[in-house]
This record gives sequence, C-alpha cells and structure tokens, in this order.
Amino acid sequence: MSGVVVLVNGEPADAVPALNRGLAYGDGVFETIAARDGLLEHWERHARRMLSGLARLGIPAPDPELLRSEALGLLGGRSPAVIKIIVTRGEGGRGYAPPAGAAPTRIVSRHPFPEWPAAWTGGGVRVCWCETRLSCNPLLAGIKHLNRLEQVLARREWDDPAIAEGLMMDTVDRVVEATARNLFLVRDGALLTPRLTACGVAGVMRAVIMERAERLGVPVEETELGRDEVESADEVFLTNSLSGVWPVRRIGGVVLEAGPVTRKLMMQTDD
Amino acid sequence: MSGVVVLVNGEPADAVPALNRGLAYGDGVFETIAARDGLLEHWERHARRMLSGLARLGIPAPDPELLRSEALGLLGGRSPAVIKIIVTRGEGGRGYAPPAGAAPTRIVSRHPFPEWPAAWTGGGVRVCWCETRLSCNPLLAGIKHLNRLEQVLARREWDDPAIAEGLMMDTVDRVVEATARNLFLVRDGALLTPRLTACGVAGVMRAVIMERAERLGVPVEETELGRDEVESADEVFLTNSLSGVWPVRRIGGVVLEAGPVTRKLMMQTDD
Repeated sequence: MSGVVVLVNGEPADAVPALNRGLAYGDGVFETIAARDGLLEHWERHARRMLSGLARLGIPAPDPELLRSEALGLLGGRSPAVIKIIVTRGEGGRGYAPPAGAAPTRIVSRHPFPEWPAAWTGGGVRVCWCETRLSCNPLLAGIKHLNRLEQVLARREWDDPAIAEGLMMDTVDRVVEATARNLFLVRDGALLTPRLTACGVAGVMRAVIMERAERLGVPVEETELGRDEVESADEVFLTNSLSGVWPVRRIGGVVLEAGPVTRKLMMQTDD
Repeated sequence: MSGVVVLVNGEPADAVPALNRGLAYGDGVFETIAARDGLLEHWERHARRMLSGLARLGIPAPDPELLRSEALGLLGGRSPAVIKIIVTRGEGGRGYAPPAGAAPTRIVSRHPFPEWPAAWTGGGVRVCWCETRLSCNPLLAGIKHLNRLEQVLARREWDDPAIAEGLMMDTVDRVVEATARNLFLVRDGALLTPRLTACGVAGVMRAVIMERAERLGVPVEETELGRDEVESADEVFLTNSLSGVWPVRRIGGVVLEAGPVTRKLMMQTDD
C-alpha cells in the first residue's frame, strides 16, 4: 500500500471489517476522482453519480459534504493525486438480506496519480478488442458499482504495455465501452457514444465531453454501435476522469487518426 | 459480529486490508459450508467447486488442505455451525489489472447455524417471484463468485418473514434459481433443473440431489424452464448446502404439494 492512505468511516485505517457487504457481495459503489491543484475535479458530478447509484441500490447515502471533507483532509494539498471513494451497504452477517439498521461504510483513499506515456494523450493510443463480454441488466446499467469481475477478466486478456485499453462488447455484440473508459466515435461530424441502458458505466468524463460537444455545436447521439461502426469511424476516442481524452490511433490492425473533432473537444475547457 | 470468528490468511482478524480486490471488484469466490458433528459436510465438493471457480477467474488457488485445516481449527468441534470461505485475488492498488505477484487472500469465518422454522423442511415453503433479473454471461455462469448485487437486490424485494425465498429469471425470461438456492421441479416422474450455462450458481446440494436421483433411477435433465413450467409442475423444491431440501408449497398464488419424488430425494442418504 505504498503511497496510499485510507480513511474508513472517517478514521485512519488500513483495513475494513471482514464481514463488510462490499467484500461479501460487491454491495456498494465507488468513485475515482482526479485531484489537481488541491481540488477534486468534477466533484459535483462524481457526488451526483454516487448518490444516484446508491439510491438505485437502496443504500442510504452518506452526506456528500462529509465525503468531500474526508477526501480533502486526506489530500492535504498533495496533488496531483487520485481520490477513490467506496460506499458499501455496511456490515453484514451472512445472507443476502441486509441486517436491520446496517449503516453504510465509507472508505476514502488517496493514491498516487498514474503516469501514462505523454504520447497517449498527444498522439493517441493502441487498443484491442476483448473477448470478455459485458452482461446486460438494466437494473445495474450505468452504476459504478463494485461488481467488476467482467472488467477484471477483460483486463487480464492483454499484457502488452503498448496496448492502452481493451474495448468491450455486450453479450449481444453491441460495443459498450473500454474496460475503464467510455468510448466515443465521430462520424460525419457528429459525436456518437454507446447508449448505456443495458450495461456500462456512465462516466463523469463522458458527461463532460457530451456537454462540451453541445456547447461547440457538435451533434451528439447515444445509440447502439457495432464493431464495424467503431472500426470505420472517422475518429475514435476514450474518456476517463483521470486520463481525460485519449484519441485512439489503432484498434487491433485498424489504423485511425486523431482528427479535428477529437482535438477540438480535448482543447475545450469547462466553464 | 456476535458469534462470528474470522481468520484472514490463517491469522485471527476482524478486518481485511482496505485495498483487497475482493472489496474493490468482487474479485474472488466463496463457499458456505454446513459443519455438523464437527465435520465439514460435502467438503470435497465445496473444494472442487472453489478450485474450478478460481481457475476460471485466473486466481491462483490456495491449498485446499490448508483451507480445510483453518476451517476445522475455527470450528474447534463447535457444531452445528456455518463455515464461510472467501478467496480473493489479493491486495491491489487501483485499476483492474492485478499487481504482479499478488497473492490470494483467504478469509475463513465461523457463523451460527441459521434457524429456520422446522415446518419449512417438513411442510414446505412459500416463495415469490422476483422482479430483479439475472444477467447472462457464460464466462461467469456457475461460479460462486463475489459479484452478487443481483441477488442482493432480489432479496430486498420482500420482507414478509413467511416468504422463504424468491425465484429469479434471467433477462430473457428463463427461470434460473432462487436468490440463494437452486431450483428443481418434478414433471411426469422426471427431475428437471435449469441449465446453468448463462448464469446461476452450480450449487453443491444441487449436484448431491442430481446424484441421488440417478441412484434412485429418477431421470434428471438440465434444461430451459419458463415460469409456466415451474408453476404447473407436479412438485417443486429448493436446495442449499445449509437448508438442504425445501419443498415448495406455494409460489405467489399457486399452490403445490410436497410430492413423493421430493420426499424420496429428501430421505435418501449419501454414502
């Protein structure tokens, strides 16, 4: 845990109760937030998504201001850094029914900011197609919950460090996202991104980019996309709260260019 | 945690490292084992299923004999009790890729044996249909992994203590199992149970019952079953390592009888 500092329910800790439902069932949600210049980037959006996920799972939400102050306390001005917040349904016994009066558990941790090659943002990344599929369940779609075995299995499919990400389809051949990033493509000047009604995580940076596009007058559509449509797009890029926008320059054997729409969206600032 | 005792990697503990991948991603498997007369019931089957699940997830398996001796040590002759074993991919940083050399984490815990009304085994149980669906992914089907949000959401659908279980369908209307039990039905003297190629947990008691049926000369088929077929069956029952066989006497408004095949299978012993 070098360089990592953790608060569990506001107290410095390096461990979580062994019977926590986050461990037993993945019964919770998480957020991964970029901290720069001592601030939590896009905090309001992260908090809103977390509250929405907790509400959909029926987990009582902690006060977001409490989470924010714990995160800022942990940050202590050190940045860039990554703040990860996990909220679980709390302590359990055995069995899927939560014990009456279970109180949610807050786990806030600070991590070193990852170092990716600068060329990945500047020149674009290579990605592969994953064999591992995302299963479809509208009840869980969009939520950044703790059931992430599909992403773990997909991420294990490659170990070539030159490959930055893996693209995932759902079990009925629709392209959904990358293992830890949302996917956009540009076709005929319009921005397209997979509709996340069956699976996928509704990323904070995805929402930011969609709003940027609207401000720039670039039409945006959430739709169903197949592998062919991704590979034949004019431009493709990936979004993530930590890595921002990565243009995609190669998908397997298919070569793409970091085109003008991607560049324009990358340069645009948010209010 | 009253009445619960835990070993983490063989050491008495009440907590697991906050960055464990079991908590972060549900990256692991579990077993729930009945301990009676100081013994772990069906240990070989539990161990085999756990090893199979770990292999499919690419998690290095701990020595099953080590797990067994930890469980027996924790049991210390106290029974009946429940032994729960969780094995996760171990400590992580952030990100889906496991750190090189991550060693699996063993979490063995002892719990009080649950007390269900005796009439549930003798006279049968009432069950409901859950709205929550199981998503389909052959890569994870059958494994008793830690991604259990669907079961948690399904179990939250009812709080009437007279309802013992909830039956779940997958996202394409096939009946799969109950939230924590496998499902069997009897039709024209044959035993039918949902095929678990897309989702569901391949229960230890399910396998035991299928073998008992074979020994008794009752034909057994794993197949696709719809809600109508379950409700119009001659007999329906649920299996689980702790609760054994529960005949189903009511599904919502549909009344069934604990018939002769169920009774015969319940009485049969396993060498």
